[in-house]
Amino acid sequence: MSVADLLHGFPVVTDIKLLWADMDARAHVNNAVYFRYFEAARMGYFEEAGVLTDSLAGSGRGRILASTGCRFRAPLTYPDLVSIGARVARLGRDRFSMEYRAVSHKLDRVAAEGDALVVVYDYDAGRKSALSEDERAAICRLEGGHPPPLED
Amino acid sequence: MSVADLLHGFPVVTDIKLLWADMDARAHVNNAVYFRYFEAARMGYFEEAGVLTDSLAGSGRGRILASTGCRFRAPLTYPDLVSIGARVARLGRDRFSMEYRAVSHKLDRVAAEGDALVVVYDYDAGRKSALSEDERAAICRLEGGHPPPLED
Amino acid sequence: MSVADLLHGFPVVTDIKLLWADMDARAHVNNAVYFRYFEAARMGYFEEAGVLTDSLAGSGRGRILASTGCRFRAPLTYPDLVSIGARVARLGRDRFSMEYRAVSHKLDRVAAEGDALVVVYDYDAGRKSALSEDERAAICRLEGGHPPPLED
Amino acid sequence: MSVADLLHGFPVVTDIKLLWADMDARAHVNNAVYFRYFEAARMGYFEEAGVLTDSLAGSGRGRILASTGCRFRAPLTYPDLVSIGARVARLGRDRFSMEYRAVSHKLDRVAAEGDALVVVYDYDAGRKSALSEDERAAICRLEGGHPPPLED
Repeated sequence: MSVADLLHGFPVVTDIKLLWADMDARAHVNNAVYFRYFEAARMGYFEEAGVLTDSLAGSGRGRILASTGCRFRAPLTYPDLVSIGARVARLGRDRFSMEYRAVSHKLDRVAAEGDALVVVYDYDAGRKSALSEDERAAICRLEGGHPPPLED
Repeated sequence: MSVADLLHGFPVVTDIKLLWADMDARAHVNNAVYFRYFEAARMGYFEEAGVLTDSLAGSGRGRILASTGCRFRAPLTYPDLVSIGARVARLGRDRFSMEYRAVSHKLDRVAAEGDALVVVYDYDAGRKSALSEDERAAICRLEGGHPPPLED
Repeated sequence: MSVADLLHGFPVVTDIKLLWADMDARAHVNNAVYFRYFEAARMGYFEEAGVLTDSLAGSGRGRILASTGCRFRAPLTYPDLVSIGARVARLGRDRFSMEYRAVSHKLDRVAAEGDALVVVYDYDAGRKSALSEDERAAICRLEGGHPPPLED
Repeated sequence: MSVADLLHGFPVVTDIKLLWADMDARAHVNNAVYFRYFEAARMGYFEEAGVLTDSLAGSGRGRILASTGCRFRAPLTYPDLVSIGARVARLGRDRFSMEYRAVSHKLDRVAAEGDALVVVYDYDAGRKSALSEDERAAICRLEGGHPPPLED
């Protein structure tokens, strides 16, 4: 299957060229580095959506990563270009789940699948914050419809 | 609760002093870095057990990380000392699951909980490999008994 | 000046898209990360030359990084695309010096200048190794002539 | 020589336990990681001095790293404990140079020597800032006298 086929269903794709130093002493990309790639894909998604881009100042509203995980399917080695798909799988009131898929151009196959639970937080108020209508609309626009609900 | 109390049930504990550069632009330890800490705890566990220490050469038998995850409970900030507990939660024929708990000495609370699925692999034979009696015994010794079984 | 103008005199250029996690708690790319970028540029150079590509096995002949340095000229921030130029500045019998220049596409200026001293090593013989005629020719081809000599 | 002897003349020493993931595909600690260690030693120095601790907010006065370098003397491998000495070598009006020495406990020898040029910056005023009398006194106290001057 082509890289594009392998990423079917992921509305936003971020390409990352591996750095040699991403590999560890086993000469494979280290497991922790996949989470850097997923983070890049998460950033790419919200830049594409035009909402919930990252608040650096710790003020206003921002995204908090509540949990994340990865299933490793094939080892990545330098040099390679990896395309990381991102999508919102479930959409709740003040939170949503995401899925990531990392596809190796060199291997032409899925290298890893990831997931995350993201909570929207109002740093000024010091509590979770419901997604606004604009934020929900931006996600639904990218996903081509409203993702299944996610309970709080 | 004390750090020791918070790590009750984890037979091996690895201490890690945070580096300033572990923090990202939000001035918290970056999510990917937790997986470096869990990896250090995993290494510490097998060094303590005296088995399944890492094969760098890609030959002989080694451990493969099949999946891993983390639930973030409290943000870590520099400076801090973090104690990471590791334990084998379930023990299968050629695989086992591990749990990790990261406790902040500065916060005196759990910063994150992690898990991993580890598969034993025979690189020379090119296939999964059953844990030997010695390996099982070393794990059971650390855990104070045989962990619940894990299906393949 | 354009990015291309700023990289005049660097025969090999490697493009790197910053990852968000490359930034540290000051919300700038961390100083250590520049050395990952320079390493990527070094790898790119030798892949382009077709010689001295990295020996992972610790056998045969390989490159050893004897020293490296960086002068920081402008802070990098996510998102950005950085082009890293690499060139061999001086060429000795068993060693050579390299220069790197990192140019930010967002800032349209030089973000950092780096240098390195690289020694060729024969792992099997356990000693430094003279560059072969092929290796010298490949470097001279990229540089458009023989770089000034470097004393051992 | 003992680790303490090898660090003679460095008034502040920071101990760092290597992480397995600090190694790259050559199974040595990656060159960029040494700069993370030096940064930790730099932080340790200013915490010990009680001045110029890092401003995260990008406001007030802070330290800017103008340049840094490293000479690699012996490869580091996991597991190891590394002691990093830091000292101010030259002290100018609004800047100072530092030297670092990384000593491996496993090898009982110097693994790397580093240096850095640090400039004091007033973020509010947007310009370099002279070291205060308190800051100079704190450095001279640690160094056991006034370091040689450094021209601007």
